[in-house]
Amino acid sequence: MTDFSFGLWTVGWQGRDPFGDATRPVLDAPTAVRKLAELGAWGVTFHDDDLIPFGAGAAERDRRVSAFRGALDETGLVVPMVTTNLFTHPVFKDGGFTSNDRSVRRFALRKVLRNLELAAELGAKTIVLWGGREGSETDAGKDVQAALERYREALDTVAQHSVDQGYGFRFALEPKPNEPRGDILLPTVGHALAFISTLQHHELVGVNPEVGHEQMANLNFVHGIAQALWQKKLFHIDLNGQKGPRFDQDLVFGHGDLLSAFFLVDLLENGGYDGPRHFDYKPLRTEDVDGVWDSAAANMRTYTLLKERAQAYRADPEVQEALRVSGVTEQAVPTLGEGESIADFLAADESFDPDKAAERGYGFVKLSQLALEHLLGAR
Amino acid sequence: MTDFSFGLWTVGWQGRDPFGDATRPVLDAPTAVRKLAELGAWGVTFHDDDLIPFGAGAAERDRRVSAFRGALDETGLVVPMVTTNLFTHPVFKDGGFTSNDRSVRRFALRKVLRNLELAAELGAKTIVLWGGREGSETDAGKDVQAALERYREALDTVAQHSVDQGYGFRFALEPKPNEPRGDILLPTVGHALAFISTLQHHELVGVNPEVGHEQMANLNFVHGIAQALWQKKLFHIDLNGQKGPRFDQDLVFGHGDLLSAFFLVDLLENGGYDGPRHFDYKPLRTEDVDGVWDSAAANMRTYTLLKERAQAYRADPEVQEALRVSGVTEQAVPTLGEGESIADFLAADESFDPDKAAERGYGFVKLSQLALEHLLGAR
Amino acid sequence: MTDFSFGLWTVGWQGRDPFGDATRPVLDAPTAVRKLAELGAWGVTFHDDDLIPFGAGAAERDRRVSAFRGALDETGLVVPMVTTNLFTHPVFKDGGFTSNDRSVRRFALRKVLRNLELAAELGAKTIVLWGGREGSETDAGKDVQAALERYREALDTVAQHSVDQGYGFRFALEPKPNEPRGDILLPTVGHALAFISTLQHHELVGVNPEVGHEQMANLNFVHGIAQALWQKKLFHIDLNGQKGPRFDQDLVFGHGDLLSAFFLVDLLENGGYDGPRHFDYKPLRTEDVDGVWDSAAANMRTYTLLKERAQAYRADPEVQEALRVSGVTEQAVPTLGEGESIADFLAADESFDPDKAAERGYGFVKLSQLALEHLLGAR
Amino acid sequence: MTDFSFGLWTVGWQGRDPFGDATRPVLDAPTAVRKLAELGAWGVTFHDDDLIPFGAGAAERDRRVSAFRGALDETGLVVPMVTTNLFTHPVFKDGGFTSNDRSVRRFALRKVLRNLELAAELGAKTIVLWGGREGSETDAGKDVQAALERYREALDTVAQHSVDQGYGFRFALEPKPNEPRGDILLPTVGHALAFISTLQHHELVGVNPEVGHEQMANLNFVHGIAQALWQKKLFHIDLNGQKGPRFDQDLVFGHGDLLSAFFLVDLLENGGYDGPRHFDYKPLRTEDVDGVWDSAAANMRTYTLLKERAQAYRADPEVQEALRVSGVTEQAVPTLGEGESIADFLAADESFDPDKAAERGYGFVKLSQLALEHLLGAR
Repeated sequence: MTDFSFGLWTVGWQGRDPFGDATRPVLDAPTAVRKLAELGAWGVTFHDDDLIPFGAGAAERDRRVSAFRGALDETGLVVPMVTTNLFTHPVFKDGGFTSNDRSVRRFALRKVLRNLELAAELGAKTIVLWGGREGSETDAGKDVQAALERYREALDTVAQHSVDQGYGFRFALEPKPNEPRGDILLPTVGHALAFISTLQHHELVGVNPEVGHEQMANLNFVHGIAQALWQKKLFHIDLNGQKGPRFDQDLVFGHGDLLSAFFLVDLLENGGYDGPRHFDYKPLRTEDVDGVWDSAAANMRTYTLLKERAQAYRADPEVQEALRVSGVTEQAVPTLGEGESIADFLAADESFDPDKAAERGYGFVKLSQLALEHLLGAR
Repeated sequence: MTDFSFGLWTVGWQGRDPFGDATRPVLDAPTAVRKLAELGAWGVTFHDDDLIPFGAGAAERDRRVSAFRGALDETGLVVPMVTTNLFTHPVFKDGGFTSNDRSVRRFALRKVLRNLELAAELGAKTIVLWGGREGSETDAGKDVQAALERYREALDTVAQHSVDQGYGFRFALEPKPNEPRGDILLPTVGHALAFISTLQHHELVGVNPEVGHEQMANLNFVHGIAQALWQKKLFHIDLNGQKGPRFDQDLVFGHGDLLSAFFLVDLLENGGYDGPRHFDYKPLRTEDVDGVWDSAAANMRTYTLLKERAQAYRADPEVQEALRVSGVTEQAVPTLGEGESIADFLAADESFDPDKAAERGYGFVKLSQLALEHLLGAR
Repeated sequence: MTDFSFGLWTVGWQGRDPFGDATRPVLDAPTAVRKLAELGAWGVTFHDDDLIPFGAGAAERDRRVSAFRGALDETGLVVPMVTTNLFTHPVFKDGGFTSNDRSVRRFALRKVLRNLELAAELGAKTIVLWGGREGSETDAGKDVQAALERYREALDTVAQHSVDQGYGFRFALEPKPNEPRGDILLPTVGHALAFISTLQHHELVGVNPEVGHEQMANLNFVHGIAQALWQKKLFHIDLNGQKGPRFDQDLVFGHGDLLSAFFLVDLLENGGYDGPRHFDYKPLRTEDVDGVWDSAAANMRTYTLLKERAQAYRADPEVQEALRVSGVTEQAVPTLGEGESIADFLAADESFDPDKAAERGYGFVKLSQLALEHLLGAR
Repeated sequence: MTDFSFGLWTVGWQGRDPFGDATRPVLDAPTAVRKLAELGAWGVTFHDDDLIPFGAGAAERDRRVSAFRGALDETGLVVPMVTTNLFTHPVFKDGGFTSNDRSVRRFALRKVLRNLELAAELGAKTIVLWGGREGSETDAGKDVQAALERYREALDTVAQHSVDQGYGFRFALEPKPNEPRGDILLPTVGHALAFISTLQHHELVGVNPEVGHEQMANLNFVHGIAQALWQKKLFHIDLNGQKGPRFDQDLVFGHGDLLSAFFLVDLLENGGYDGPRHFDYKPLRTEDVDGVWDSAAANMRTYTLLKERAQAYRADPEVQEALRVSGVTEQAVPTLGEGESIADFLAADESFDPDKAAERGYGFVKLSQLALEHLLGAR
């Protein structure tokens, strides 16, 4: 069984977009939980404001949390991750942790700190932080070095609080290049990983890459995930689909770049990832409530199919031979020999003939085609 | 005086492109040096193969180096940076440091190590490494985690050798998302900075971002440079122009996104960068030899003009007031008070009214327009 | 005096985006008119629903129109263009003219036809049609050939009605590649022009290109405008700014690709365009009401500055000489001689030496740099 | 049997790219013909210079053509299409038909006219024209309106010559947004179709869209092909693969956006296209000669698989029902009733309730998922 989880905001999206009004009614959290459980999901995640309306009082909060918890208990769904909304309310229009307005920064930081308590209460292990408003539309309007300093201050504070309170959270930063801000700070997996290396509690902080976010910069998502895994920083993942550099589409997983989705599943299943398979998608605005549930099911069905295809691909002896011929497996052998010193290395190997070595054919097209045919169920 | 430098391969580009033959004759290195000096450049840089043809014998090598050195001595031009070509010869078709073929990896590593000697001989301080062939066209063909392991091994070896030999170099990785490979490892400034954090001699390794390379992923170059500066890793820079996500154009600096170029110069001049202003551009293929030199001069002229405009912008009291109103300067104030504990912080500030605070206008358009008008010389 | 116009929806944008709530209050139409007039605008444009809320009754409609007309009379502002909203209401979620639902197509067509009456009443000359919902997120969901047939049917009907009623309108289609739909039909100026050539009243239909829309596909906007002008189809234009392929930013004109904006103004002023200079931008969501008006003024100020720079560029004898040297002016000479037959042509010219002719340097960099320096006010 | 054809320049590509030397030996035309025939191809196409080196004398020409013809006769391969190289020689550095240099325009036009004779001799039906050098890197350097005038002059002349000589050719323009020029004229299928509508012999001229070229502008290729088919202008097609907006990759068909390839094959097989399935791809530079032939075979294999999948999709009753529910088939019904006048139409339909109609769910996700599962061979 695969650990599939969904954000409340995904199936709950009402279809409001920059040019149009909502096309679907509000979906309450307990209903979402029950329906997701019925479809076979394992977990559910949320922003504070998805569960408890911004500004709600204590009674309202308790009522909402209690109903949600009831549905969890009833269905057995878990809450593996919680996140904080620092983007919807107008007060965050210039950012949360890095707003130019210090009073807003303080408000944002407090909102995140307080949400940790709720996350702990519901048993979450991971806190995602998406800084979608941390950025600018004009380079004149943001002192980026100072903003990164504030970003670091905020992360250090949040991680420290988790440590102090014994919450035991891991934190996952979610990069995105743009939208809603013209340019967002920490725009890619790489920038986020680099930033993390500067944090006080860097060991507690990793990334939550989203398929579409990297593809909005036309970057290779599989490569990005591989780097995050290699740096032991893939703490969480957001699966969905996107058609290249344009607005954030949040399509069903696999409904964007399908070949990339295949290699992604292959990597997640075989590359050392042990977190949830989390879908952060939006049911198309053209769908009614039935379409919402069809789309939720489609995410899981596609992942499962790709996983089967990847298993068959890996198990095929012809593929194994092609991987060997292509040298893919040879990459694991260190370049220097065991115990070989630089001096020895420089003195050795004089017989290498680059022109001759250049004749090697790597057979990457054959390998690609094998993958494609496995994906198509044609082998 | 600004420290302007040029790669030999820039003015020396003969105009061969994927669809067309060379349009200009070979330019020998001493002539390039003399002409660049005449135009006001301060330094010149090169790949090993720019100076000494691949596979040349010792005598040829000495003759070439000697002629080059003669021109340097004659003109006073310095060699601030040297780099190694791991991309032109067919042997590198699947990469150098991360080729799937171990014998190629060894050849590549040896080529870089040997080039350090020449770089030291010519007084270079910085070694740039552009891994343009480290990557893949299909996700089937590269074990990216293993490849990053080999990449790290290579960098650790190269840095160690510099330390062992007392060369005192700093190394600068040059990211690029794609071209010539379908997807290149370490595709952005962020990914390179993240990778560097894993290196044995990470303190010796920084980045050499190129304007066009980040813009090929439609990333904000100024933001990327700010993050590199903030992480104290901007060791070198490649200035040029690009028209967004398409093939690598290497236009004259400023002939791409001009507003971004303005804010970049402003940042380089005021943000703590102290390396050379290096142009890595290509004279358009439509130009003859006169056009080559016009284009070299245009790079320096544009930089100088933008520097003047940035100075006037910074000095304008109306700009200073707009920066204050926008809160740009307020970003430098820590979010927590001096000595404020998290507990104190959580207990305080109850009077903040988000709806009220949301009314603040940041005046970013006004600030942008002030910048634009300074750029246009209209204030 | 330049004929500057603004959409009511531009200054009236409340800052609601896909991730955030409105940051500014409603702006009523008469106030917008008065304020735009004060800033120096010449005209104002609108969607039916900007002026009269969707579904309003006759009394409400009359009240709104009358107040609007009062402000027009008072200020002397004209209404050069009117357009119809076929995108906000959920009924249009799969399109208007090309919705898969025929009853929706009929509703949409009727909405446009009825809006012509209001447009005529207010003296508009041009009707813009932006089919932002005509498209799909999945290729499975739209029979594009049938949809284009319906699109043509709608345009033919609308144009016929204008002819029948003697309204004398010209129609301008506004292309956009995506957002809010995953892919929009007629995605570029080219596709729209091609479609127009199939219409019954093709002579009455042209295009309304928007800077940012073409730049979302990373196309050269100046080239697209030149083709529209050459085909005598530039009936209207939407000026704004964009930072390449990403969500639709609607920045202030010039706050995106500034060099392109310069050449655009040069072309509009000298290339045969005689329509309004219409701004279709959004004041940044971070701005308050003062920022709205600053941004409106910034559009006009930037256009005016670029126009002055373009005039100086054209008038500069050095530029004129460079244009001649580059052969830009030689493009106007037909390739065949006057009266030269194909047979004569094939028999002639044997002396042409391609290698020799290839030596010509076109001097495009010099010309670019002259333009850049004029733009910077540095000549 | 599907009519698969390949350009000589595809399998013959030696792997020279902007950053690297050739990795494969020259492949002579007769060998290419024999090998392609063996793999199951039906046709072969070429540029004049692929067959006969630029500047070759009459004897050389005859020898080459004769050997090529021998291989055709031997194998039964046909030559459905021929094209002219106006991009490799430096003389074309500023274009062929639209070079700023009139003597170059004359040379280019003559080269194309003369190539028609060879094309006729070899039985070609279609002449492709790719104007890869018609464009500019700076808007200062090209009078685009004049250039389009020259482009039209050239096309009118070429078409007239074909008519005069009784060749009976159809011409197909191949659009591309950029590379090798910064911006190419007629950048998309749309711009080319629009331009064609202005030609004297417009009925003889259509388009030759290439998968990767439209995807370099992140446009929906299937939509573009549908518009070309709808305008009865899809005269030829270039199949390959591309990973979004970056350099022109010319991957194997299906090795880019696979979902789009599926819907494309579905459209070509069911949408009225009757020309060849022509592959314009490049074997990866990492491949040796065996890899070249593996890649050629992979193109045909993938097309055939997708065709089978599309047939099964169309035949599935569940799909047919989903198409009906989604209204895809309803798009074929005219919006106005038969004989319904505009006046009648405006008077009718008053009972339509937009809020009610908006509740319809279109079921596009379900339909997408059915397509995906057919593609994966999972139904």
